[in-house]
Amino acid sequence: MKTLELDLGERSYPIHIGTDLVARADLITPHLKGSRVAVVSNETVAPLYMDKLTAGLGRYRPLSIALPDGEQYKTLEVLERIFSALLAAHCDRRTTLIALGGGVVGDMVGFAAACYQRGVPFIQVPTTLLAQVDSSVGGKTGVNHPLGKNMIGAFHQPQCVIIDTETLNTLPDRELSAGIAEVIKYGLIRDEAFIVWLEENMEALLGRDQEVLATAIYRSCEHKAQVVSADEKETGTRALLNFGHTFGHAIETGLGYGKWIHGEAVAAGMIMAASLSQRKGWLNEPDVARIESLSARARLPVRAPVELEPSRLIELMAVDKKVQDGQIRLVLLKAIGHAVLTDDFDIELLTHTLQACRSER
Amino acid sequence: MKTLELDLGERSYPIHIGTDLVARADLITPHLKGSRVAVVSNETVAPLYMDKLTAGLGRYRPLSIALPDGEQYKTLEVLERIFSALLAAHCDRRTTLIALGGGVVGDMVGFAAACYQRGVPFIQVPTTLLAQVDSSVGGKTGVNHPLGKNMIGAFHQPQCVIIDTETLNTLPDRELSAGIAEVIKYGLIRDEAFIVWLEENMEALLGRDQEVLATAIYRSCEHKAQVVSADEKETGTRALLNFGHTFGHAIETGLGYGKWIHGEAVAAGMIMAASLSQRKGWLNEPDVARIESLSARARLPVRAPVELEPSRLIELMAVDKKVQDGQIRLVLLKAIGHAVLTDDFDIELLTHTLQACRSER
Repeated sequence: MKTLELDLGERSYPIHIGTDLVARADLITPHLKGSRVAVVSNETVAPLYMDKLTAGLGRYRPLSIALPDGEQYKTLEVLERIFSALLAAHCDRRTTLIALGGGVVGDMVGFAAACYQRGVPFIQVPTTLLAQVDSSVGGKTGVNHPLGKNMIGAFHQPQCVIIDTETLNTLPDRELSAGIAEVIKYGLIRDEAFIVWLEENMEALLGRDQEVLATAIYRSCEHKAQVVSADEKETGTRALLNFGHTFGHAIETGLGYGKWIHGEAVAAGMIMAASLSQRKGWLNEPDVARIESLSARARLPVRAPVELEPSRLIELMAVDKKVQDGQIRLVLLKAIGHAVLTDDFDIELLTHTLQACRSER
Repeated sequence: MKTLELDLGERSYPIHIGTDLVARADLITPHLKGSRVAVVSNETVAPLYMDKLTAGLGRYRPLSIALPDGEQYKTLEVLERIFSALLAAHCDRRTTLIALGGGVVGDMVGFAAACYQRGVPFIQVPTTLLAQVDSSVGGKTGVNHPLGKNMIGAFHQPQCVIIDTETLNTLPDRELSAGIAEVIKYGLIRDEAFIVWLEENMEALLGRDQEVLATAIYRSCEHKAQVVSADEKETGTRALLNFGHTFGHAIETGLGYGKWIHGEAVAAGMIMAASLSQRKGWLNEPDVARIESLSARARLPVRAPVELEPSRLIELMAVDKKVQDGQIRLVLLKAIGHAVLTDDFDIELLTHTLQACRSER
């Protein structure tokens, strides 16, 4: 097991990465304040890991809650079910919530913890690659709104993050690839050497080599931790982690939540952002081809869904948390490994980019 | 106009108290960050004060949102309507929300501000006495759950609080009395001299004497500000502000939200708490009689609704944010002007108290 620390002063916390950690109650109990835990998972993950996780927590009378599985259930309505279950079981302000699952579970449980009785502690036990390298770290929590992704939420940091790489053995291929999209993202925005490493290790990653997975996760979490500790509430550089996401969120909202999973939409979004960066003269053709090739090797989509017109995508992109006084702001690449947040692009150039990225060029 | 400061370091803010302040855009504009404001009110208050408030804010393109009026609408469902209106109008992360109304509006808008795009600034313009002396100050925000009052929420401090005492001229008598309940509370928990003042000025308060109202509000806000700045997140002494509230919330939840309004339930709750304090030997008979008499003069209920059995009330009291490891904790009085938080009472003594306080002794 390797441990990273996310440095946020009083709210610092450890990120443990290793094998067979789901059963390690000893990693959880030091963070519990009261005499109760509530483990929230979904209908897919609960049958696989709930018993393993709760086995060592008997004296905390673990309450188990299973939510429906899928991005389309990341809503205020399903959130209320968590509150109902907690209240019915008389969980008090010192109850610790544990999120066992992917990004949807982590985001919702984190938000539930931020709001339940005006705030209770929580712990992240992410079981998808995407959650392990991105959403479980950094304290962004929330739910979707029919009009926009993650529009309702809070910053609420976990007490610790426990990443068990063995849970990836039960992850569907499609979700493994979706997680790799966020791994590639770190390379593209701030670590060109990591892109080289990914080019060398993509087959091992897809083959679920535990050591290669652990390395990719550790390096991703290291990047995330550095960025978050420098700008917790996203007043500046943290926005760079949103590379590909403004495009991606528009795809997810436009298609209806759950059709394309988050990492897939982000992957297509990264290609669109790279393509716009090229049109601005920042990247060159081989850079974009290199990104496309790596994404394709990760079995990720490299084009936007053809049914979404550029005008519709732009409309959806205008509902983004980075929008300021009506102006869309995007994370673009000056070079592979160097991202910037900018509103300096022509709307026509954006339209052309979106048009080009949805057809088969 | 008089101004108090709530001292919370970087998050300190002014509380302005005076006449005709609703129209004073100059009190609002220094706190705006972006180019947009959204004023959220309810169907009763909006027709009276919305235009007055927004008149001076034209260049911030004020978006007006009116919610249904009443505690029964303080729900996640109605909260979602606020989010929908904000998203439909493309309000971004620098939009400032303004809460124009009573405690329900203030609590909901504050919570909406805490969650919209993970947090936007907000301003309180309370128009009921209860909101002016209590709920608009201190950053407690939230909504109710069918199983418990204010169970879902956040601590989110406003940018400023603007209290226009003239808005009380349109307040129904019943709501004026409900507000006086919270005013009496401050005297009972920490200021016996204030009780003496209230005994002398109750008729003037009920007669809506602007100067007497302003004095009562100023003194109440002073108490609230002192307590909150010492213990923002209620890890200790802030809980004393909950005097009468554990009983009161049980009444509100038990009857169904909106039957008894909050201040009425708290008034009955304060008598129950005083009565239990007497049974514990802390207060004497004349103390309790004095509290009852002041409440009765304020036209507040001094008995719990007869339809709620003691066992049902205790069941409801067990869902309270002060409950710790299954143990109900109550704010009781050692003397008039001196409150303590305690779990040192017998459940039978509590049952007897509840029984006595619902019948006409």
